[in-house]
Amino acid sequence: MDAEILTIGTELVLGFTVNGNAAVMGSLLAASGVRVRRTAAVTDEPALIEAAVKEALDRAGTVIVCGGLGPTKDDLTRESVARVFGKALRRDDAIVERLRGWYQRRGIQQMPEANLVQADVPEGATILPNELGTAPGLWIEENGRLAVLLPGVPKELRALMEEQVVPRLRERADAVAKSPSRQVTRSLTLRTTSIGESAIADILGDYQPRMGQNVTLAFLPSVAGTDLRLTAWDLPDAEADGALKHAGDWVRSKLDQRIYGTGDADLAEVVLDLLQSRGVKLAVAESCTGGLLGARLTAIPGSSKVFVGGVIAYENDVKLQFLGVSADDLSQHGAVSEPVARQMARGIARSTGADAAIAITGIAGPDGGTDDKPVGTVWIAIVWKDTERAFTIVLPGDREDVRGRAAQYALDSLRRIVTGAL
Amino acid sequence: MDAEILTIGTELVLGFTVNGNAAVMGSLLAASGVRVRRTAAVTDEPALIEAAVKEALDRAGTVIVCGGLGPTKDDLTRESVARVFGKALRRDDAIVERLRGWYQRRGIQQMPEANLVQADVPEGATILPNELGTAPGLWIEENGRLAVLLPGVPKELRALMEEQVVPRLRERADAVAKSPSRQVTRSLTLRTTSIGESAIADILGDYQPRMGQNVTLAFLPSVAGTDLRLTAWDLPDAEADGALKHAGDWVRSKLDQRIYGTGDADLAEVVLDLLQSRGVKLAVAESCTGGLLGARLTAIPGSSKVFVGGVIAYENDVKLQFLGVSADDLSQHGAVSEPVARQMARGIARSTGADAAIAITGIAGPDGGTDDKPVGTVWIAIVWKDTERAFTIVLPGDREDVRGRAAQYALDSLRRIVTGAL
Repeated sequence: MDAEILTIGTELVLGFTVNGNAAVMGSLLAASGVRVRRTAAVTDEPALIEAAVKEALDRAGTVIVCGGLGPTKDDLTRESVARVFGKALRRDDAIVERLRGWYQRRGIQQMPEANLVQADVPEGATILPNELGTAPGLWIEENGRLAVLLPGVPKELRALMEEQVVPRLRERADAVAKSPSRQVTRSLTLRTTSIGESAIADILGDYQPRMGQNVTLAFLPSVAGTDLRLTAWDLPDAEADGALKHAGDWVRSKLDQRIYGTGDADLAEVVLDLLQSRGVKLAVAESCTGGLLGARLTAIPGSSKVFVGGVIAYENDVKLQFLGVSADDLSQHGAVSEPVARQMARGIARSTGADAAIAITGIAGPDGGTDDKPVGTVWIAIVWKDTERAFTIVLPGDREDVRGRAAQYALDSLRRIVTGAL
Repeated sequence: MDAEILTIGTELVLGFTVNGNAAVMGSLLAASGVRVRRTAAVTDEPALIEAAVKEALDRAGTVIVCGGLGPTKDDLTRESVARVFGKALRRDDAIVERLRGWYQRRGIQQMPEANLVQADVPEGATILPNELGTAPGLWIEENGRLAVLLPGVPKELRALMEEQVVPRLRERADAVAKSPSRQVTRSLTLRTTSIGESAIADILGDYQPRMGQNVTLAFLPSVAGTDLRLTAWDLPDAEADGALKHAGDWVRSKLDQRIYGTGDADLAEVVLDLLQSRGVKLAVAESCTGGLLGARLTAIPGSSKVFVGGVIAYENDVKLQFLGVSADDLSQHGAVSEPVARQMARGIARSTGADAAIAITGIAGPDGGTDDKPVGTVWIAIVWKDTERAFTIVLPGDREDVRGRAAQYALDSLRRIVTGAL
């Protein structure tokens, strides 16, 4: 089945807000076999909303509309879509009750009167309950035309899409095409880091013949590394996952330990899991990353099982005092040097008793670069049980890039040391 | 003048990529007085591109198209738009030369043949040179209809928009409406944090009459705090900035020290500047934020003038050993308590010699909450010269939210203590 996406909001059109909602809807629809070829955004003007809904229905038969369901006077989606279907709005008592309960659970006895408009629904609409907020979704279907109205709060939108809209659309699509022949577009991402795009290309060689029909491979470099996105385009539902797996297995066979995870896997979580399975604690000593590595690790729930903490050794005095770095080595080799990186790692491992430690010292820029040590120069030292290793690399990009890449490179070095790949 | 925005790319429609380009184009056009009411995205299919361009031209007279100008076979924008205007494509020798030079400057003697299609332009088009990449922009105008084609690489798009498209469109708009009467939409953001949306609303009271005509005020709560966005809608160019300033001055007069900056000001930078002007150094001791505060501070170039570093005291042993927290207080009051927060701040100030210190200890969740100390409970202690203050707060949201809000709350507490507002 076909559908179009329509997002409502002056903020979106004027670029005050980036349209993440359209992306969420697009990927969920594509993965479930709904064919989307067009999305639009319009300002909060009833005539524009009405026209855009009408056009989308004429072209695709189905439109998924997001936004404009709030309680204020610039929320005009309900009435505009009702007009397209020639329906009146009527107040739904069940929604009123639900709204009152929602406020009461939050300790607010008197619901603002303005919220009552969120209980006004086009006649005959099916209500999609919203557990996370006040605006329910609405499903309006007549004469083969379908409009689904969803709230614009990102978490509410995603929950309604995943739990209610996608299952209903799949059912509907299955009723048209028999389930195994429904065509879907799905993707699989394999994540690498600390290896360049062109080095991966060299390893993979002439990969397209190995991908199978209708499967493409895209290289997506970013600060996190190079993601390899495999996409199975317009394949029957029953075949898409198999085709992706086949192509993915081939890429894995070539890149092996270079792949640290799939999808949106976080390398910090991968490393924490790996260390937890070995019963090893981790400490960090950060200079140029200034806490970024610790922040990455502690962003993961349960990280306290593995991560003990560490020192942000930004000023040299802190390196001396908290990590026992040698003043002679600091003055002789500079803060961004192999001996200092090694002493930072050894120092934090010793004082915390952790069996794994990461130290990072580098020149993040924009200032501080020299001919010998340009901006982007980073020294990383890793303590792993009785061994100690140090690496240097010159990382590209601006200050934010260099710091992000340094943390990622350090985590991947530890990962590969632990697994024996480095 | 009116315009619509059209972005081309299957990746955008299927949500593999969030459409940041549409937002950049929307805000630049609105700020320069071009009225945009609708944006669309279509997949890489010539018939769809052609239809979408035609519709946008019929409605608005002008369409700004982004994407599909690359060298590969799914880059179909040039030929699709040429068809809309009934033009043939011809190879432009000047672009060919420029392309060859672009590759030579990068040490590649032999330009890939595929790139030559980027020199194919619709007859009569004006070429907008692209200093940052290989695809030039194209300006195609005939019979009162205007299509501008721009590359989809974000940095190239922004540069072409700012340096070439916006100035040309302003000229064009001025030719229609006399310059001072050209209508623009501009906004001004005032940033607050550690004060709730409703507390701000109480302070501002019935604000709309004070805003002046055509100026609105939006409350935008996020992890960073509550931003107040003032927008001057559809005002003559000569009046918009004055109207914004007038409304902004009134809001400032009411909220005073609560406003920490404008636009996308970073509170970490505000605090660093404030401390630098007083010649004071800053150290941190972080438990639940795990390095996030240090990472925020060191993200700012030049932060080493003020920030010395600190300790990520995630495990209790690290609090004892590096910060001198009392084992008795830890076991009696727990890690998330006033005495522990105060000892963390005092400890890091003492050992680093910094005159300003921030300590954060809290329960970020999802686990670890109790009836007494639910998830979100945070203790913050601030050392400022000879004084020491501690605050507790229960912050809403998930783990990421709690950590982000805690860092922001701590920075704002220090800022307000330094300025004497707290």
